[in-house]
Formats: sequence, structure tokens, C-alpha cells
Amino acid sequence: MVKASVIGATGYAGAELVRLLSSHPAVQLVGLTTQSYAGQAFWEVYPHLYGYVDIICREQDLPALLAESDVVFTALPHGHAMAVAREVLQAGRALVDLGADFRLHEVQVYQDWYRLEHTAPELLPRAVYGLPEIHREKIRSARLVANPGCYPTSAILALAPLLKRGLVDTDTIVIDSKSGVSGAGRGLSLTTHYCEVNESIKAYGVASHRHTPEMEQELSGLAGKRVVISFTPHLTPMNRGILSTIYARLLMSLGQEEILSLYREFYREAKFVRVLPAGMLPATKMVVGSNHCDIGLVVDSRTGRVVVVSAIDNLIKGAAGQAVQNMNIMFGLPEDTGLAGPGMYP
Amino acid sequence: MVKASVIGATGYAGAELVRLLSSHPAVQLVGLTTQSYAGQAFWEVYPHLYGYVDIICREQDLPALLAESDVVFTALPHGHAMAVAREVLQAGRALVDLGADFRLHEVQVYQDWYRLEHTAPELLPRAVYGLPEIHREKIRSARLVANPGCYPTSAILALAPLLKRGLVDTDTIVIDSKSGVSGAGRGLSLTTHYCEVNESIKAYGVASHRHTPEMEQELSGLAGKRVVISFTPHLTPMNRGILSTIYARLLMSLGQEEILSLYREFYREAKFVRVLPAGMLPATKMVVGSNHCDIGLVVDSRTGRVVVVSAIDNLIKGAAGQAVQNMNIMFGLPEDTGLAGPGMYP
Amino acid sequence: MVKASVIGATGYAGAELVRLLSSHPAVQLVGLTTQSYAGQAFWEVYPHLYGYVDIICREQDLPALLAESDVVFTALPHGHAMAVAREVLQAGRALVDLGADFRLHEVQVYQDWYRLEHTAPELLPRAVYGLPEIHREKIRSARLVANPGCYPTSAILALAPLLKRGLVDTDTIVIDSKSGVSGAGRGLSLTTHYCEVNESIKAYGVASHRHTPEMEQELSGLAGKRVVISFTPHLTPMNRGILSTIYARLLMSLGQEEILSLYREFYREAKFVRVLPAGMLPATKMVVGSNHCDIGLVVDSRTGRVVVVSAIDNLIKGAAGQAVQNMNIMFGLPEDTGLAGPGMYP
Amino acid sequence: MVKASVIGATGYAGAELVRLLSSHPAVQLVGLTTQSYAGQAFWEVYPHLYGYVDIICREQDLPALLAESDVVFTALPHGHAMAVAREVLQAGRALVDLGADFRLHEVQVYQDWYRLEHTAPELLPRAVYGLPEIHREKIRSARLVANPGCYPTSAILALAPLLKRGLVDTDTIVIDSKSGVSGAGRGLSLTTHYCEVNESIKAYGVASHRHTPEMEQELSGLAGKRVVISFTPHLTPMNRGILSTIYARLLMSLGQEEILSLYREFYREAKFVRVLPAGMLPATKMVVGSNHCDIGLVVDSRTGRVVVVSAIDNLIKGAAGQAVQNMNIMFGLPEDTGLAGPGMYP
Repeated sequence: MVKASVIGATGYAGAELVRLLSSHPAVQLVGLTTQSYAGQAFWEVYPHLYGYVDIICREQDLPALLAESDVVFTALPHGHAMAVAREVLQAGRALVDLGADFRLHEVQVYQDWYRLEHTAPELLPRAVYGLPEIHREKIRSARLVANPGCYPTSAILALAPLLKRGLVDTDTIVIDSKSGVSGAGRGLSLTTHYCEVNESIKAYGVASHRHTPEMEQELSGLAGKRVVISFTPHLTPMNRGILSTIYARLLMSLGQEEILSLYREFYREAKFVRVLPAGMLPATKMVVGSNHCDIGLVVDSRTGRVVVVSAIDNLIKGAAGQAVQNMNIMFGLPEDTGLAGPGMYP
Repeated sequence: MVKASVIGATGYAGAELVRLLSSHPAVQLVGLTTQSYAGQAFWEVYPHLYGYVDIICREQDLPALLAESDVVFTALPHGHAMAVAREVLQAGRALVDLGADFRLHEVQVYQDWYRLEHTAPELLPRAVYGLPEIHREKIRSARLVANPGCYPTSAILALAPLLKRGLVDTDTIVIDSKSGVSGAGRGLSLTTHYCEVNESIKAYGVASHRHTPEMEQELSGLAGKRVVISFTPHLTPMNRGILSTIYARLLMSLGQEEILSLYREFYREAKFVRVLPAGMLPATKMVVGSNHCDIGLVVDSRTGRVVVVSAIDNLIKGAAGQAVQNMNIMFGLPEDTGLAGPGMYP
Repeated sequence: MVKASVIGATGYAGAELVRLLSSHPAVQLVGLTTQSYAGQAFWEVYPHLYGYVDIICREQDLPALLAESDVVFTALPHGHAMAVAREVLQAGRALVDLGADFRLHEVQVYQDWYRLEHTAPELLPRAVYGLPEIHREKIRSARLVANPGCYPTSAILALAPLLKRGLVDTDTIVIDSKSGVSGAGRGLSLTTHYCEVNESIKAYGVASHRHTPEMEQELSGLAGKRVVISFTPHLTPMNRGILSTIYARLLMSLGQEEILSLYREFYREAKFVRVLPAGMLPATKMVVGSNHCDIGLVVDSRTGRVVVVSAIDNLIKGAAGQAVQNMNIMFGLPEDTGLAGPGMYP
Repeated sequence: MVKASVIGATGYAGAELVRLLSSHPAVQLVGLTTQSYAGQAFWEVYPHLYGYVDIICREQDLPALLAESDVVFTALPHGHAMAVAREVLQAGRALVDLGADFRLHEVQVYQDWYRLEHTAPELLPRAVYGLPEIHREKIRSARLVANPGCYPTSAILALAPLLKRGLVDTDTIVIDSKSGVSGAGRGLSLTTHYCEVNESIKAYGVASHRHTPEMEQELSGLAGKRVVISFTPHLTPMNRGILSTIYARLLMSLGQEEILSLYREFYREAKFVRVLPAGMLPATKMVVGSNHCDIGLVVDSRTGRVVVVSAIDNLIKGAAGQAVQNMNIMFGLPEDTGLAGPGMYP
């Protein structure tokens, strides 16, 4: 059994991780830390787990936690995983960080977008960007995995085959994403107050969202040259799900079926990516509750653009599920252990 | 492996059953019938199951279906399971009927409330009302199980300990239930048109809903005398979940903790009923995605009433999950096989 | 023109009042106070009013406000209107208080339910409970109107004709209410965090909600004897609307049409109460955006109970609209000035 | 008083028109026709109008209708307004058509996108595209106004100042729109079944939506050259509202404030367009219930693109409100008669 702990367990991503780990057949959940609910049983904070997770939440006490854990998951606001990572690695444990601190290879890019000093730059070369469909081999031997952001997961998977094959003009990429509200976490804010969100949709972080450099880094890697994109996230009145609608100009005349074949080939080994048949496009409802990323596309011959649409559950493939997937790979378990199964509908 | 078929597989309850059975470790799904989608792969009708359920839907062809099935589930409009049941039993197969045709012991009551002739009255004595927490032993040896209605499941479980112990004045029972929209099925109607339901709540079937006699039958059995209730269902703008708020006058002065103890004792062996600690009341969100029925209560000393609140997922404990639970019992499997695990939150 | 000010303008009830007053043909809005947004233009706090309400929010400065106002509205947490009321009345201005401080006639009842000392008990005899359909004449000459709570508005209007005529056993009254989330205000709390509310329904304040004594006071007045009720509010995933489902045992055999006639007669002069035809029951969607209270009912001959269902927009008839209605009456304006017009659908 | 009739009154756009016209101070509503509800009072079909609109719905009987009407509104599926228009004009009445039949100047374009023969091509030269902010003068003298589609309204208003001034590369325009469900009408379909829509977002009509040529026609007119765009609509889980997020590459280096100034200047006389201050972007919630189009924008210096975001209420500025605005202009009334007032929040 892999002994696992979660630091920052009482946010939505943390709680989803606790749910997944608590029913993972090869994992024993040993420690849960939280800033706000120390001393309470986890089910008191998340009553859906009443009868399932009796562990008492504790304040962060890293040495004790490391003594009993094989792997640590951090689900913390950015800036808070750096010091933790150093200790985890020094203790010889594995770390999957669901935050942003180790996703960007370049310290300067991190500091420009997050406006924060990076205090563990020496660890960046050891961090692997944990998108298994792209970096599976590196994850296998990694001790420090930077779990991707929710928006980047949906966008990179949707674009990877096109960029890898050099089929689109990378200067024309527009990524328009729509997210459910759980992506904003459980922290209170007027932005996530029920009546402010319900029955409304809005854009936010236009031309400034921090997932932008993360997408550009990975898309550049795939394209083999620097890629700059337009990315706009939107807050959508639903609990879970991200839909990304992506536009790019094709460099050559290609039919929908040709491109779909490339996608199917590219994702041949990817258990969680479902390339939909021609004529079918994803809705978030198809994937909510699962670790899937569904992808569909349309070639628009009038404009010469391809429109790719992808859908994920932001808390699963966009966070906790992908973290478990990474752990499975790191520990030599079948990649879908504890993650198999379709979503829940409706 | 238990070979299972679903007749009426493409409604919401049927599809949820397909999802549960497709990942049930002791079940092999063999046949799915539907009126509207014959010839299509099941995932074409429910794309969340793309990659999971490739079975081609067929029109109802009972002899063929029975040849390959150990158990048949029917999820049909009332009146349609009678003829099916006769054939299933004659063929020596087991039947779990998710509809209303075999829930009421009295033919006349069925005919009064459903305004339909019952054409298989000879089977009624063989039918067991499939609420395992009340009738587990009978279900074990049954071949024909009448899976309870969603509202009755939530109401009977909430009241059973009180009636069994004779603690409330049965003339004062008021059951006010709030259901998500999936309970109304996938059939098109103005009532379930998005903009008509969204941002609104309403009562329906006031003093006339067909789940009333079903509740009265079971509550009378528990009380050992005829019980007549007021029951009002409400349509609530959410996909899943039923919350029942139940009022009854106590016959003696009892404290909350005393009554909760009785509940805990009554449900000691019930894996899916969670009696909540004092001070905690259920919300549907705590149970959605699970086979749980959560129950909490408050004693109101001002009025002498007890207020019991219960929550279920109408498609799982209120339909498909309970049907699987019944099948498990009928086939000697652990009762929670394929049903373990908490709900999904948020 | 009536010069009006709002103290506590930036909560949802306050903002709705600002919207209604800003388009009221006989009102000039002169001052808006707020604890949190002083110095900002009102439209910055509520951008739907961009171009409509440019008034700069200020901190509470009562003397200045009174110098320019004919009427003051207070939309404050309980306990905060007492001192304000004394000053307003001393200055000879009129006050409509949307809070709870002046609704209960008995100081002791207030203190028992609100657990707070009442510091202006000498004003209670001058306060009129501002439900115009019941107390119109008193409101006409009042200087201090206590605007009713949202739940009491929906419940009292639904029961008034029955109690006034002595048709039901007052010991059997059960009021089960379902409210949209705006009733909980704009203040941040986990309870009103989007993902916690969305796709869920729950009961709260069972047997302890502070609107209970308010209902009992008014129902007792109507019945001419002390009435004790069971009241359970529920939080429903929608922005606006309250639906109350009310149960009571009839003291004599009466038909639905007979009772509806009594209701029509009782509300003959009430512009905002719509007694629905037999066979029709209200949904909150029918009234949202309007100052209406819609009422329908069913007589259940099986149980001897009548089930009355009422619907209001909690922010309009349940708060701001009713406050304007009261002001209209106090200032001799037609009762529906600035309030005419149906709701918005869907 | 202008005597007005609505043909196709019982869809959502028709009903919203009835609501607006019924409280319009210069309009008398004389006739309402419907295919499905003839013989019923309008309030029976739309109970929020109980007490407001008692007119009995009738089947379409054009001569009788024309005898009593000054203006006719048609809210019909495409293809159905052509014959009506001919009769209305021959009778010397005015027509505002909320459908698509007269929006496109070119018969061939209509036939290519709608796959339907246009049977009144001789009327096209007389039809004016009813976007008052662009074509106010022509509308003033028109007898046949083609009320714009909902998506085109949001997109054209958002782009007009940029195209009129030639500031963007028209080959790079991407329009990503998100609509509430009422835009799909009241007709039953699985697509608008509550549980299919709720808690999900999806793209539809990718590269093929019929509002595309309408946008291209008007944008081409503004740009003075042929414009081809990418347009993707999305179905969003909310009742009302359209948010359009629009991307285009700037042809020169311009600051946000410079562009906002151009917008303010362009819309100086437009009562219903609100150009938001820098730093503020629209949400649909800001405009729902009003005839506003709110516009905000961000200049992205990294990519050289401008991102414009606009929001409307699809049933008001996107349909019925704009139709009333057009009627006001045609009949010499102040443009905002019956349309003044902000939206409703929350």
C-alpha cells in the first residue's frame, strides 16, 4: 500500500483528492492537514464522507507527516509549496504539487506572472510537468511532479497533436475556456457568492490569467518554437467542468477525418483521452465525475480554421484525478487504478 | 457472474442502472432494450459511457433476452411490467421492477390510484417490496422484487423507527418532499423544459400523487395499523436528490438524543442509512452520487412535534442503486457490491 | 416628490429598494448609506445600475440624512434599527424598517428569539406591522412601519382568510417554506458559497427560525386566539422566490371552490394578491420580478386537510417592494405606484 | 395609441414582447395569434401575466388582425414570415419581424444558409436591418424592419466602432458567444430538457450557425469590405443572457483608453449601449431584464489583439426589447418608451 498524505486537504481540490484516495485500492490515507479545520474529523468538514474518512485534520507538521508517508500531495495557494517540496525531497518522499509553484521551468516567468519570488529555484530542474499524456516517461522516474492547472490540461491536450505535427499557424491560436465555479475554490469571495454567479456568465483575467505562461511553455515544447496565445477564462454557473473552445488557422488543407485520425493515433495509449467521432462534440456533462478529457473538432473551410473543443472535470482530470494518475505512474501502478469508471449523468 | 439485462434502459433510471451494472464486479451486462433508440450503441444515447458500454440497444425481444439473462431489470412506465413479469418468472429468471406495477399489495388500490387495470394480479403475492432496510429477509428469497418509488424510499426510511415503536400520532404525519428534476425522467414535457424549471420551485400532485398509497401501505405495516398521510412533492431546480421534511406529533415526551439512539439501533445493520449526529441535518448534496439515505431530526418541544429530514439521490437509492442492492441480496452477494463509495461533492 | 433615503443600501434588499425607488415616479432618492462601500458610487457596487444611480454611498450620518429626507428606509441586521428609529421619529420623519426590530409587539418575545436586549421598547406601541393586506388602515397613519419578514409575508397571506373565518384547527398548522438564496443576503458565508448551495436543497433553522414568533403573532391576531405553528425554512438553489406549502386540518367539510371564494372576497381590494383559479397552483417563477403574492389551494378529503401554497419574490413582496407599498400608503400615493407590472418570465 | 398585434405570441420571444407591449404607455395590444394555444387566454399559457393579459389567443387570421392593427410583430420560425409580410405591407401596416426572413440582403445567401427558398425576394430591398444603433435613420421611415438575431446584436455592437474606423485586421475576427437557454425557445427538445442542460456547457453549430452570414453582412457594411468571421455559439446553463467574447488583431498600436473613447463617441446617442469604464467587463447579470448592451474591452499588448466583451439579455435587446425599440422609432416615439429602467439583480 502506498501511504499518502494531503497538505491543504480541505479546499475543493484537496477534498476531491481525499475522496479518490480513500477509495483507491492501493493507497492508505495517513495524514490530512488544513489551516482552518485542525482538530475536526474530515467528515465534519465534508459530510458526504461521513462514515468514510474519520481522520482528524491537523495543522501542518511536516516531519511527522513525512515519517508516515510515501507520497505527499500539496493543494495549496501558490507560493506555499516551495518550502514543503524541499523537505519532502530531502526526506526521500515523493511529491505531487497541485499548485503552480513548480509548473514553470523559468524562474523569471514565474516571478513575472505570479509577482512573487521563487524561493526554491534549485528544485525546478527536478520538477516534471505532470501531464501524463505528454510526459509519461519522465513522470515515471520523477520525485517531484507539478500537477498541471485545470485550464492548461484542457487546452494542451486539445492542441497537442496539431502542434506536434506543425499543422497550424501558432500565431493564430485563441483559447476561450469556460469553467465551473469549483475551480475558484472553497474560499469565500463575492465572486463565488451564490447569487452573484448563478444565472450569469462573465470573462475574467482577460489577457492576464496565470495559466497563460503554463500553456505557452507546453505548447512551445510541442511546437518546437515559441508560441504566444490569447487565453480567456469564463466563470460559468455550474459546479464542475471546463470546456475549452480553441481556434487556429490551418497551414494546409486538411479534412476533419484526417485530423481526427492524427488525434486518435496521438492518444492511442491514453486511457483518459476520448477522441470523439466526427459529428460529435464534447459537453462538460459527458465527463463530469470522471478523469476523462473528451475532444472533438470541426474544420471550417470558409475561414481556414480548425475549431477544437475539449471538456474535462476541473476537479478530477483538471486537479485531483490527474494527481492520482501521476502518483499511479510514479509508483508503478496501472495508470487508471482508482480512476476507472465513467462520469455520472445527468 | 450474474448476467443482467435492462428493459427500458434509455430513461434516466435505466441509464443509471446501466452505469452501475457496467462497473459492477459480479455482473455481466448482456442486453439493453429501448423503445426509441433500437439499433444505436448505448454510448450514442448516453455519451458519458463512450468507451464503456458498446452494447447495441434493441427492441424488446423477451425470449431472446431471457435466454441469456439471470436477472432482468424493468424500468418502464407503469402498466408495462405486468406482462414482462409473467414471462420472466415463467422462464425461471429473477426480476427487479423499478416501476410501480408490483409495489401495492391490493389490486384495488393500484387501480384506484393508477386508473389502470392490473393484468397480473396473481403475481402480487409473490412480489416483495424491495426496501432492504425493512424487508431484507424476504428479498433474499424473492424472484420478483418491486423496487420502491423514490419518494417512498426517502419517507419510509425516515419514519420507520418512529412507527415501529409507536412513538407518533399517525394521524398527524405530513410529508413534504423536494425532488430534483431527473425524477421526472428523460421524456420531453413543458414541465421539464429547462427554462420552465430553472430558477423556480413548485408543488405538484398535491393530495393526489401516486406514491401516497405506497407510503401508506408500508407505514401501516410498520405501525401495525392503517396510516393515512399528507404528502406533497415539489419540483426543485437541480438534477438529482430528494429531501423529505416530515412532521409528526410525538405521543410522549422524548429527547432528540433518545430518538436518535433508536434510529441508530434500528439501522445498525443498514450499510446505506446514515443517522446523522444531533445538530446535523442532511442536504441532498451530501448523498448525491451515492446509495446513501441520510437522516437527521429535531424535536420541537414548543409544538410537541418531531421533524425528521432525510436525503437520497433519487436515481441511486431512489431507483437504480436500490435495484442493484436488491439484486445483490437476491444473488447472495455482499449488499454493497458495486455500490460502495461516498457521493461526489460539490 | 417624496425624498427618500436608504440606510444599509448595499445588501440585496437595500439594493432592490434602490432600484425600485430610482424608477418610482413620485420619489427622489437623496441618500444611501453603507458600512462597507462608503465613497463609491452606487453603480460601482451594483453595476446593473450603471447610468441610473450615481449617488455616492456614504457612512451613516443620520442628522444630515434626516435634514434632506421625508422617509427613511432601514435595511440593517437586527438590533441596528432601534437607535435610528428614535432619531427618525424625533426628527418628524417617517421610517420603514425592513429589519426585525419593530415587528414583534412583545419585548420579551423579541429578546427570547433574538437573544438581544431591545433598547427602544417605548417605540413598539407606535410601530405598525406593515402587511398592507391586513393592516392597511393602520399603516396609513403610521410613522414607523415594521416591514414584515419574507417568510411571514408568504405564510400569513396564505393563511389569513382561513384563520379570520375560524375554518381550521390552529393546532395542526405546518408551514414548510422554500426560499431562494438572495434571502440570505450578500454577506459572505460558506452557506451561500456557490458550490455549496448549487444542486442541493436543505432545511435550516428547524423549530428555531426567528420568523416563527412573527408568524404566530399575526396568525394569533387573525384567529383571535393564541396560535402555535411548526415552521421549517429550506434553502433552494435559485436566486429569488419563496414558496410556502401550508397544511392545516379543516374544522368542517368545505369544498375547494367555497374556500377559494372566501379568499377572493378577503383579497378583493388587494392589488398584489392573486388568488389562482381552482386547479392552478403557484410556482415562484410566476411572481419573480413582481410585488405579487400568488395563492392556490387544494382540499384533501382523504385527510381532512387543506393544503395552501403561496409564492412571492422574497426581495420584492418579501422585502423592498412591500416597503415601497407601505411608503405609498403612508404618503397617500396609489398603493401600486412604482410597483405595477408583472414579473419576468422565464 | 399604437395598436399592435403579435403573430407567434406564445414562444419565449413572443411572450416577452407581449409583456413589454402590455405595459407600454403608447401601445394597445389588440391581437395575439398562436399555433398551439388558440382559444386560451394568454395568461393561461403564461401565468405570470395573470391579471395583465386577458386576450384570448387565436389562430392566425391575418385580414382580421390587420383591420385592427397599426403594427404587426412576427415571432415565427424562419420561412413563415414571408407571406405574412406581403399582406401586412399591402394593407399599409408596419411590420417588425423577429425572425430571420428579411435580415439578409442577398436571396442566395439566405437560401444557402437556411436551405429554403425565399418566396418574397421582392420585399428584401424594402427591409431595413433593425439595429437602431447602426441604422436608426433608415428604421425611421421603414415599414418592414428585420429585427436582428440575438447573437448578431451582441457581436455587431461590440465590433462596430473598430470596423468603422478600420482598426483591426478583419481576417482575424473570432466571435465566441455564450447564450442562456431561452434563446432556444419554448419548443420541446432533448437539447433543452432540464437535466441535459443544467450543470453543463457545450458548443453547437460550430462553423455552421445561421447567424454567421447576418454578422458578416453587417460587419462588411461597417468595414466597407467583405468580412469573414469564425463564430461559435455555446449553450450555457442559465435562462437569459448572451455574452460574446471577441478577438481581433489590431492594425496599429492603440491603448485601451483610446479605444474606449472611440466607443463612447460612437455610441454617444445610443441610450441602450453602455460602454464600461476601463477595468470593468460585463457579466450577463448586469443587463438581464433590461434593453442594454454592455461593452468592455482589454488590449493585449503581448498578442497585439483586442478582446471585446459584450452582454445583452437575449430576449430583450436580443429580441423583444429591440423590436419595441424599432417600433418606437418607426412611430416617432421616444426610443426608450416602455424600455427604460435597469435590469434586475441578482
